[in-house]
Amino acid sequence: MSQDPLVIFMPSGKRGRVPAGTPVLTAARQLGVDLDSVCGGRGICSKCQIAPAYGEFSKHGVTVEADALSDWNKVEARYDEKRGLKSGRRLGCQAQIMKDVVIDVPPESQVHKQVVRKAATARKIIMDPATKLYYVEVAEPDMHEPSGDLERLAQALEDQWGLKDVAADLHILREVQPVLRKGGWKVTVAVHRGLHDNRPRIMEIWPGFYEAGIYGLAIDLGSTTIAAHLCDLVDGRVLASAGVMNPQIRFGEDLMSRVSYVMMNPGGDREMTGAVREAINTLTREIAAEAGVDTGAIMEAVFVCNPIMHHLLLGIDPVELGQAPFALATANSLTLNAREMDLDAMNAAARVFVLPCIAGHVGADAAAVALSEEPHKSEDLVLMVDVGTNAELLLGNKDQVLACSSPTGPAFEGAQISAGQRAAPGAIERVEIDLETREPRFKVIGCDLWSNEDGFTEAVGDGGITGICGSGIIEAVAEMRMAGIVDPSGLIGSAEQTGSARCIPEGRTHSYLLHDARAEGGPLIAVTQGDIRAIQLAKSALYAGARLLMDKMGVDGVDRVVLAGAFGAHISPKHAMVLGMIPDADLDRVTSAGNAAGTGARIALCSVAARADIEKVVRRIHKVETAVEPRFQEHFVAANAIPHATAPFAKLAAAVPLPQVSFNTGGGDGTDGGRRRRRRG
Amino acid sequence: MSQDPLVIFMPSGKRGRVPAGTPVLTAARQLGVDLDSVCGGRGICSKCQIAPAYGEFSKHGVTVEADALSDWNKVEARYDEKRGLKSGRRLGCQAQIMKDVVIDVPPESQVHKQVVRKAATARKIIMDPATKLYYVEVAEPDMHEPSGDLERLAQALEDQWGLKDVAADLHILREVQPVLRKGGWKVTVAVHRGLHDNRPRIMEIWPGFYEAGIYGLAIDLGSTTIAAHLCDLVDGRVLASAGVMNPQIRFGEDLMSRVSYVMMNPGGDREMTGAVREAINTLTREIAAEAGVDTGAIMEAVFVCNPIMHHLLLGIDPVELGQAPFALATANSLTLNAREMDLDAMNAAARVFVLPCIAGHVGADAAAVALSEEPHKSEDLVLMVDVGTNAELLLGNKDQVLACSSPTGPAFEGAQISAGQRAAPGAIERVEIDLETREPRFKVIGCDLWSNEDGFTEAVGDGGITGICGSGIIEAVAEMRMAGIVDPSGLIGSAEQTGSARCIPEGRTHSYLLHDARAEGGPLIAVTQGDIRAIQLAKSALYAGARLLMDKMGVDGVDRVVLAGAFGAHISPKHAMVLGMIPDADLDRVTSAGNAAGTGARIALCSVAARADIEKVVRRIHKVETAVEPRFQEHFVAANAIPHATAPFAKLAAAVPLPQVSFNTGGGDGTDGGRRRRRRG
Repeated sequence: MSQDPLVIFMPSGKRGRVPAGTPVLTAARQLGVDLDSVCGGRGICSKCQIAPAYGEFSKHGVTVEADALSDWNKVEARYDEKRGLKSGRRLGCQAQIMKDVVIDVPPESQVHKQVVRKAATARKIIMDPATKLYYVEVAEPDMHEPSGDLERLAQALEDQWGLKDVAADLHILREVQPVLRKGGWKVTVAVHRGLHDNRPRIMEIWPGFYEAGIYGLAIDLGSTTIAAHLCDLVDGRVLASAGVMNPQIRFGEDLMSRVSYVMMNPGGDREMTGAVREAINTLTREIAAEAGVDTGAIMEAVFVCNPIMHHLLLGIDPVELGQAPFALATANSLTLNAREMDLDAMNAAARVFVLPCIAGHVGADAAAVALSEEPHKSEDLVLMVDVGTNAELLLGNKDQVLACSSPTGPAFEGAQISAGQRAAPGAIERVEIDLETREPRFKVIGCDLWSNEDGFTEAVGDGGITGICGSGIIEAVAEMRMAGIVDPSGLIGSAEQTGSARCIPEGRTHSYLLHDARAEGGPLIAVTQGDIRAIQLAKSALYAGARLLMDKMGVDGVDRVVLAGAFGAHISPKHAMVLGMIPDADLDRVTSAGNAAGTGARIALCSVAARADIEKVVRRIHKVETAVEPRFQEHFVAANAIPHATAPFAKLAAAVPLPQVSFNTGGGDGTDGGRRRRRRG
Repeated sequence: MSQDPLVIFMPSGKRGRVPAGTPVLTAARQLGVDLDSVCGGRGICSKCQIAPAYGEFSKHGVTVEADALSDWNKVEARYDEKRGLKSGRRLGCQAQIMKDVVIDVPPESQVHKQVVRKAATARKIIMDPATKLYYVEVAEPDMHEPSGDLERLAQALEDQWGLKDVAADLHILREVQPVLRKGGWKVTVAVHRGLHDNRPRIMEIWPGFYEAGIYGLAIDLGSTTIAAHLCDLVDGRVLASAGVMNPQIRFGEDLMSRVSYVMMNPGGDREMTGAVREAINTLTREIAAEAGVDTGAIMEAVFVCNPIMHHLLLGIDPVELGQAPFALATANSLTLNAREMDLDAMNAAARVFVLPCIAGHVGADAAAVALSEEPHKSEDLVLMVDVGTNAELLLGNKDQVLACSSPTGPAFEGAQISAGQRAAPGAIERVEIDLETREPRFKVIGCDLWSNEDGFTEAVGDGGITGICGSGIIEAVAEMRMAGIVDPSGLIGSAEQTGSARCIPEGRTHSYLLHDARAEGGPLIAVTQGDIRAIQLAKSALYAGARLLMDKMGVDGVDRVVLAGAFGAHISPKHAMVLGMIPDADLDRVTSAGNAAGTGARIALCSVAARADIEKVVRRIHKVETAVEPRFQEHFVAANAIPHATAPFAKLAAAVPLPQVSFNTGGGDGTDGGRRRRRRG
């Protein structure tokens, strides 16, 4: 055969002829095949493992003979002995192409591994983190050609990896000489290539081939909780997830009370900044310990947070965010050194990336939702709602995206509710009320049984039923409305009016008894009139924000709704729509995106290209300021009621028939649940 | 007159027609005239002052009438009242061109002020520092167009000053909001545009127009002394100069003993790094106090130093520099944050620039000499010698520059000399010996009279004569040779041999008495045989280095010699040549460059372009390693003698006739003063 052997790489299908004896890794590089290598082809890292496929490949018109690749060589034998090679695998840098061959590149050998984020959307993250490892062999110093050890290391990175004009952190100047000598002029370096730097920078150096891996944190810094994922920076895997309470709660439950704290206590922002940074350090140590990872191997952290947490994290006094015109100190994304921020439970050279803020009230958390859910790429009109103490809303499609935030208050999180509690074991999270008997049944967190099923009490265990969390109160109020226990204005009827003995008087109003364990020394869990009012205020704010965005866009409906946030993941779309929290949409087009902000943080951690993208996307999002829009107030008032199921809502009405009751003994409040505007246009 | 008025700017002669009513500053910008402005034309900074010239200008064919410029306006009147305008001066941003006019731009109103470095060379530094001040007016926040305060500041810098993509240090994020509000949306910022950064960075911010100025330090960090100049970063003026002893002396007098200290005491480098940084902090505070400048206004520091001081300053263990192959950790220039280096007596955001090193033995101090003296631009072949404990030598012209260092030891600094001392008041610095009487006379530092002149004793005062410094011992030995007191091999003759009673026996050798004040309880200052030997070793090393470079370049002579360094400034070229320290050259072509390394540091402080230049120049300098060149040893041995004035040195011989004496009672040492090689070729 006079012709050079043909090589076909799978799954890409890339193919070409290479001279016999060409190593598979070399052929892959020449043909632009995505085959990983950290050691640069020295048989050390095993990242370039491939699997030759023998036999006939009619599709490719190739017959692969058993000797298509060179024999197993010493380097492979030694590697197999020391660390083990899977059966059928070869090292791409050692095996040479001798005859026509079809070569499988297994997923773990691909540089740009695709990490399937979640089955539901099949969104993929292309691994391209800002920090990567490179193994290099560095020229030894030569008295006659004097150059610094660092410059020869930089030259090696350019020659062996194509990294040009590499700079180094100051501490690397101190370490480069002893580490090069300890490693016998072979070292592994971690190089950071930030969104905001022109030069790649060496941030860490290890003698020889460094195998322990490098890691990053994706941190969703909320007003109430701080949630972190520890990710492998090579393959994007989440090794551990953990959360802690935001210790700033002691300075104020909600954001505005924290801003007030600073106004009343000069220097109070420093206290809060110190507290949250310390909590992040503790969380970092815990999550690293859980994953069995050395904190020194954590090279990056990505933060998403609302604007006030953003400022308090960075040590910026948030007082301007507490008053019009709600000016941010900076809106752009930031790349900082972790040490500058006193984040000392990670590598001393670790970098921090903070996503951009959209506006003074719409933060990097909303930007992260946009990065994760991509409303700017949507063909249909999507409303994204991230519910928290403030709700962030994004409305748009590929033509335009609008954003606002809405002060929902903490009711959706179980606060300001008589029997409210955080979503924790023992909390009622789901409620159903029988339309005939008006008797409730419920589920509590930590138990799969409904309360009327056999074995429920035993399954709930000693802790018992302790309260009701955010999703539970929403379902309870919606079910009460559906069962005719609550009228459109939000009034709970009396036992006589509703025909349910569970409606008990409480002062001049009534409460609906969900669970009474007082006989056993347990709690009384009821939905009070005050609870209904709190939920009405919260849902009106949320709905008014969505309506305001719809007004601005000139539309009367949306094609789909995405509920984001931990709360969004647990909320029942049907109940949310009954309550009037969100605009009408087909029930099957209301989905949960889970913790989309956290996912956005993970994406930014795994992809430097995504960081550049979101910076651009955010600048194109149009911001709407609810605080100064008279229409917001208008929508807010109009949305107070819990709507009738009238004609315009036929679809919903069919799914969820609502009784036409009214307990309002005086005049009605004249609202139609905020849905009157639906009729315009 | 239908034509637009003509404006001619002097001294540039740039001219053009502009519509009547055009402000002078606007016209200057349109015509590319170098007219300064910090406030952007708002009548605040007064940097744009100009002087209209009235009368006839036949050369330009223009007659300037008294009303060629608009009337003195309110802004100018207010400025004059508050701060005073020199007679005849106008503010360029206020005065409008109404008729043909000739306008003088005084030197202080030119942006690119030229700072004449020193009369001798008339070398000019174009002011273009890395850190500059900008006054801007920033747009107020708008709720409907949300953007961060920092982004609006960056936009203002782009719109008003053409600075694109400005970034900010983290602390600026904390300060930007209160400072913008305090200044009523008018602020002054210091922006750093480093050699190694792609983006200009805001490093400091002040409310309103900041008038107090910004400053920089040019620091020559020597093994023995640390010398600093405090310079105005706007006009390059040196406000104050000061020096302190390098506290590392307590770890070892010379560099190699400091390296040994680290080898013997692990962690010793940290001690030395801490000591030198603390000394720099102290020096910084002192020099700022002397100049009446707030340390917070010091925005930059530039360092030049030898490689070992370079590493110890940066906190790098210098042990590799103590042994072949003398590998530097890094050779390139560096831009660092002062705080990273614990330099905390300057602005918290101050930047440090460290000049590049040429090789493991030829440091940033030699690079600074090259920057100041520009051998790479010389038409003729120049030898530059920076004498210290190590001598750095540069030999070259515009085609090629070679460099080496030579271990001269501390004799030239007065150390290892029996009556040696630092160059300080009371030290003998100049010596003459009468060729007939062989009687000496001398001058001491701090007194202008010769020792044989009337009033000398009174003028020297109470401190008296305390010893002999480096330049003094060189002159003494050379004069002793010229007077026939010392023979070519370096032997001091006896009183009988020399006919001078000042030659007194000391053991088996003789000393020459310079000054005997023992009767008054003062010192005996004599040149001993040991002193001559120490000087011979030092000068041989220096000469051998120069010869080695000449060998490498294939030349037998040089066109001129430049002596650099504080020592070089005080050395007598004639005596240096008699001693054989430097190769022969016309005496009038041996010049002193003063503290050329310090000057190089000042140039780098004042010009970011110079920083880029020297980085390139240094990479092109060819380094010669004396430690491994057998020829160096050869030259060193051959250079031991103090030469005869023989035929090849006719020019020198004519100027300085040397007696043909020999006190060597045994055989001669066979050397010819290292000048035999002069005959080759």
